[in-house]
Amino acid sequence: MSAAWLDEIAWDEHGLVPAIAQDAETGDILMFAWMNRDALRETVHTGKAVYFSRSRNKLWHKGEESGHTQKVHEIRIDCDSDVVLLKIDQAGGIACHTGRRSCFFSKLVDGVWTAVDPVLKDPKEIYK
Amino acid sequence: MSAAWLDEIAWDEHGLVPAIAQDAETGDILMFAWMNRDALRETVHTGKAVYFSRSRNKLWHKGEESGHTQKVHEIRIDCDSDVVLLKIDQAGGIACHTGRRSCFFSKLVDGVWTAVDPVLKDPKEIYK
Repeated sequence: MSAAWLDEIAWDEHGLVPAIAQDAETGDILMFAWMNRDALRETVHTGKAVYFSRSRNKLWHKGEESGHTQKVHEIRIDCDSDVVLLKIDQAGGIACHTGRRSCFFSKLVDGVWTAVDPVLKDPKEIYK
Repeated sequence: MSAAWLDEIAWDEHGLVPAIAQDAETGDILMFAWMNRDALRETVHTGKAVYFSRSRNKLWHKGEESGHTQKVHEIRIDCDSDVVLLKIDQAGGIACHTGRRSCFFSKLVDGVWTAVDPVLKDPKEIYK
């Protein structure tokens, strides 16, 4: 497989691109992260989501600690080629480090960010 | 309404936050853009999506030219408070400047980014 598809991506000044992980079945948005070239290449080659951790400055194989890996069904890119969308199957049904299904569990309600989705598993049980 | 909810957002070094627009009914991801503080405040106050155009360096009232405004049903934020999710109703059923429903119309097929969704309206008819 040539790397032309990687060259077509409009990497930002840090060599990164935003990536959205969406549940392939329900359409729920589960998380948002960043990818560099290696992360996206490895995602495609392994079929499992690999991101780039900006805080740790290294590849982040999603689920490496938690077991909550993401099997990739489809990869899309937007019209400016600067955002990646992954349609995934979320192992364990938990994408968020807080033990919730999705990282987007806080909703603006009357001017207050309010957690509206339940914690499915105690993070202490996830990250032992 | 106090601005505490705006202060809670982890704006990046440019004072921006990524924003994902998702169809409130179908769950389809329609577009991705950026917001600054003014854009998010105005989105909440008007109930219509307002972004910050990085290329034009100013507020971008989505649909100001095309008429393809986005009525906001719900606003969420992720666990790090650094990504905003809008659940919207897309006027005209077209979010993308190419005349497609969604900006994420290109799919990776055998190593080639391939447009898989139809153009619903000629952009020349949208931007007169």
